[in-house]
Amino acid sequence: MRVPPGVSAGDFAAAIAAFERIVGKDWVFTSDDDLNLYRDAYSPYLNEPEERIASAAVAPTTTEEVQEIVRVANRYKIPIYPISTGRNLGYGGAAPAYSGSVVVDLKRMNRILEVNERHAYALVEPGVSYFDLYNYIQEHKLKVWIDCPDPGWGSPVGNSIDRGGGYTNANFRNHFDSHCGMEVVLPDGELLRTGMGAIPNSQTWQAYKTGCGPWVDGIFSQSNYGVVTKMGFWLMPQPEAYMRCTVRAPRFSDLGPLVDTLSYLENSRITTGFPDLSSPLLSYPPIGQIQLWNENGPPKLSDEHIKLLADVKQGYSAELEAYGVKEGIPYWELWLSFYGPMEVIEASWRATQRHYGKIDGVQFRVVDKLNLPIDPSTAEKYHEPELGVPSLRIFSIGARTPWNPTPSHGHMWFSPIIPRTAEAIIEANRVFSEAARDLGMPLFKTFTLPACFWERSFVFILATPVTEDPATNKRYREGFKKLIEVGGKHGWGEYRTAPAFQKTVMDQYSYNNHALQRFHETLKDAIDPNGIMSPGRYAIWPKSLRGVQS
Amino acid sequence: MRVPPGVSAGDFAAAIAAFERIVGKDWVFTSDDDLNLYRDAYSPYLNEPEERIASAAVAPTTTEEVQEIVRVANRYKIPIYPISTGRNLGYGGAAPAYSGSVVVDLKRMNRILEVNERHAYALVEPGVSYFDLYNYIQEHKLKVWIDCPDPGWGSPVGNSIDRGGGYTNANFRNHFDSHCGMEVVLPDGELLRTGMGAIPNSQTWQAYKTGCGPWVDGIFSQSNYGVVTKMGFWLMPQPEAYMRCTVRAPRFSDLGPLVDTLSYLENSRITTGFPDLSSPLLSYPPIGQIQLWNENGPPKLSDEHIKLLADVKQGYSAELEAYGVKEGIPYWELWLSFYGPMEVIEASWRATQRHYGKIDGVQFRVVDKLNLPIDPSTAEKYHEPELGVPSLRIFSIGARTPWNPTPSHGHMWFSPIIPRTAEAIIEANRVFSEAARDLGMPLFKTFTLPACFWERSFVFILATPVTEDPATNKRYREGFKKLIEVGGKHGWGEYRTAPAFQKTVMDQYSYNNHALQRFHETLKDAIDPNGIMSPGRYAIWPKSLRGVQS
Repeated sequence: MRVPPGVSAGDFAAAIAAFERIVGKDWVFTSDDDLNLYRDAYSPYLNEPEERIASAAVAPTTTEEVQEIVRVANRYKIPIYPISTGRNLGYGGAAPAYSGSVVVDLKRMNRILEVNERHAYALVEPGVSYFDLYNYIQEHKLKVWIDCPDPGWGSPVGNSIDRGGGYTNANFRNHFDSHCGMEVVLPDGELLRTGMGAIPNSQTWQAYKTGCGPWVDGIFSQSNYGVVTKMGFWLMPQPEAYMRCTVRAPRFSDLGPLVDTLSYLENSRITTGFPDLSSPLLSYPPIGQIQLWNENGPPKLSDEHIKLLADVKQGYSAELEAYGVKEGIPYWELWLSFYGPMEVIEASWRATQRHYGKIDGVQFRVVDKLNLPIDPSTAEKYHEPELGVPSLRIFSIGARTPWNPTPSHGHMWFSPIIPRTAEAIIEANRVFSEAARDLGMPLFKTFTLPACFWERSFVFILATPVTEDPATNKRYREGFKKLIEVGGKHGWGEYRTAPAFQKTVMDQYSYNNHALQRFHETLKDAIDPNGIMSPGRYAIWPKSLRGVQS
Repeated sequence: MRVPPGVSAGDFAAAIAAFERIVGKDWVFTSDDDLNLYRDAYSPYLNEPEERIASAAVAPTTTEEVQEIVRVANRYKIPIYPISTGRNLGYGGAAPAYSGSVVVDLKRMNRILEVNERHAYALVEPGVSYFDLYNYIQEHKLKVWIDCPDPGWGSPVGNSIDRGGGYTNANFRNHFDSHCGMEVVLPDGELLRTGMGAIPNSQTWQAYKTGCGPWVDGIFSQSNYGVVTKMGFWLMPQPEAYMRCTVRAPRFSDLGPLVDTLSYLENSRITTGFPDLSSPLLSYPPIGQIQLWNENGPPKLSDEHIKLLADVKQGYSAELEAYGVKEGIPYWELWLSFYGPMEVIEASWRATQRHYGKIDGVQFRVVDKLNLPIDPSTAEKYHEPELGVPSLRIFSIGARTPWNPTPSHGHMWFSPIIPRTAEAIIEANRVFSEAARDLGMPLFKTFTLPACFWERSFVFILATPVTEDPATNKRYREGFKKLIEVGGKHGWGEYRTAPAFQKTVMDQYSYNNHALQRFHETLKDAIDPNGIMSPGRYAIWPKSLRGVQS
């Protein structure tokens, strides 16, 4: 049996016995076979000594059991690492940030406590997956939509507290922002309800976010200050219709007005669906279509097009641009989604075209126009999450196909936030591609377009592969850290990262001699004096391990 | 010279001398004349011994001076109470929560650091008022709108950290929600930047809210954990057009579908402006029109109407309803505002009418339809904040007029959050009106309609007058506290309150033996061990005063 670092075998055995008394023997796992399931399949340290491995796992089924587990952890100073469904692949998966921690697996806390159609919200436990919530809504014929990430087997609670994003309207795509009300087991075992939930018999726990007094919800995201055991989410009423359109612009320099007008339209709420930048000329598919692209093979390009692509520098080549103009292949294609009554969608699209009319040679196209609801099987023809339907098809990205004979083991997501401008896209491509080339990283090769999960900013979402070769993985890990530092120097920070990179990422948030990090530590010491809760998550270590671990 | 409680005269003199060295003698105030300006003109303890009074005030002009002031406060254990513009009348004004505190008046920190039209955001210091920001935007001819409360002399920073609301689109009306990035002087004098601001040279401080790691912004709202010295806000691009419409429904029972359809339309983002419930039949004007109503005198009602009103119980009377149907006076009138391209506004209004078509006898009316921008002087014909224009006209409410010979001194805002349903409006009216009657409180007299500042919930905004008579004020204060408790028992909590009522309000947030309050105190002790920062604000006291003060 593995033992957490700094814990005696006797204490650990006593803790395991206590966990067994709380949840039953069947739900405490200590064998290697069982614990393998909590390894991060995408670990950048896969099969190396530094791979983060759990010493045990315990799977409670109630909040009270979570409280008891936390109290036992305090008694024996056992590091614990709660996970919801543990599906945040590329960002750490189910493996603990501190090797040897006991994973508290909340998968059995999978109750859908309420889905309220009238007020369009859900209250769920952390073990509920997007599929579970979607299926419940379908079974009960409720006219509300979920907003889910790619893929959909994750947990709304887990994804939200990791601050993930989705694909429907702007206010739902931001999964932390769309939550309303939490229940949290604090590191001392106390039970906290936030917002209006702090009022017993509250009538507005899922209706008004901030309650009264300091609003504490934010500090339970991307942190190690508590175990979230319930969480409310605002849902979108099932829209009447959906329309997906594209705006095509012929020239490289059109990227500026394309992006600036998008900002205006989004900030004005004229377009609110997931906007998706692509480049048919650079053969860069829209994010939402990557999986469909993969299933259908790579795009068919002419020999001339392929030859011209080889000469592209930082996304631009006058010859390629001329070729695109001649062949009618746009440099840029912006995909826009609209939800709502058909008459409003159509008016919004007309206004959108009017605003984009200033781009010389711009072309508009309505790709999909659907009255809703559609049959769930029809959703498969589309990028399902944009229709509020969870899917696992995204896994086709790294899969073995005729044109990809060497599937990756996994990937580490490199995901810096940059300003929402063409200049920033171009500058970040220049900076990162030069750095990636120097580091031998398979990233930013030709030209990379960012994603628009969140309002007001762009985020790159780039998968660095995890391979079977430890030497390659080591080179990629080190390169990945350098890229994070390069981003930091330019004022671009990651929004989320796997435990292996959390110290490097948080080191970039260094204003005033790391004041934010020190503040996080002040909170940590106060809230979790024994340091039992997810030590090291987001580089927040308890006092005893601070400076020792990283 | 007044001296803060628990501080020796010698220490206080030394602290004052230190403050004078930091900001100059001209900006440290200790005379009664000067300190009177920091009294809460609306204090429910006006002229009574319990009225909260500052012992001094100090007005820094830079963040560095704020840091130095905080360090001096720690050295001499001086309670300080930072204010932005101190205009939150009805919620406490400029007076400290703990009598004898030194007010840190940030009015001189009134720099507008940036207004970015392209990305529609502003970065401002706490002394900037809505008028300042509006005027700056006008002078620089920037095509962005502010969202301001009634009245507009307050501070965007102060109003946001008090979690106030405004009158334009839903996502801007929530003033805390629309902020992006803070700079905070912590109680130990350290300087913190939140979100992306923690990256030196950050390119996205006002573009991406949450940064990486725990998102701490929320704990600096309605709290005493720091002094916010800079704050970013997302602005609305100047809309192309504005339309204000009404939906009129004839019968009392129509309130249900009126509200439920509003929820659907708002949650679907079909209508996004400030919705305003009124009752022409009960002679209850829409909130946004109250000030215009006041300027034009009371509504002209027929003798028969006035007589019928006298018999209304809990908002309903069959005779009144019949009278309304006969005379064409609707029971309910919902005012809806739309911003955007005229074609989108008109389509949204058509969809709105379609959804409201199910109410028998419903009537629709377009009240205002404006192409924007309009001349600022034209805005005066409207409720200015709905057009993004700050105003002070709201003060006409309590002013002396021919029909109001006894103006009030001020008022305490009673503002509980209730569910967004007709049932809740009716139930809350019943519960609060019975309680108010028993307590002799001039509230909920006939029937009160809530406001829609925030999505998904309603809030009552009711002014309990502050009079010249201490006995009356005492009765009102005690009644006010009882009303808070009555609300709490029914699961309805206040969203904000004046220091005089903060303990009573926070006592309602009592889930699990006041776990939230105890958590606030844990944070307080960690962040502000000397307890110098705004002791007592939102009932959070430092250890030394806990249980002593309330």
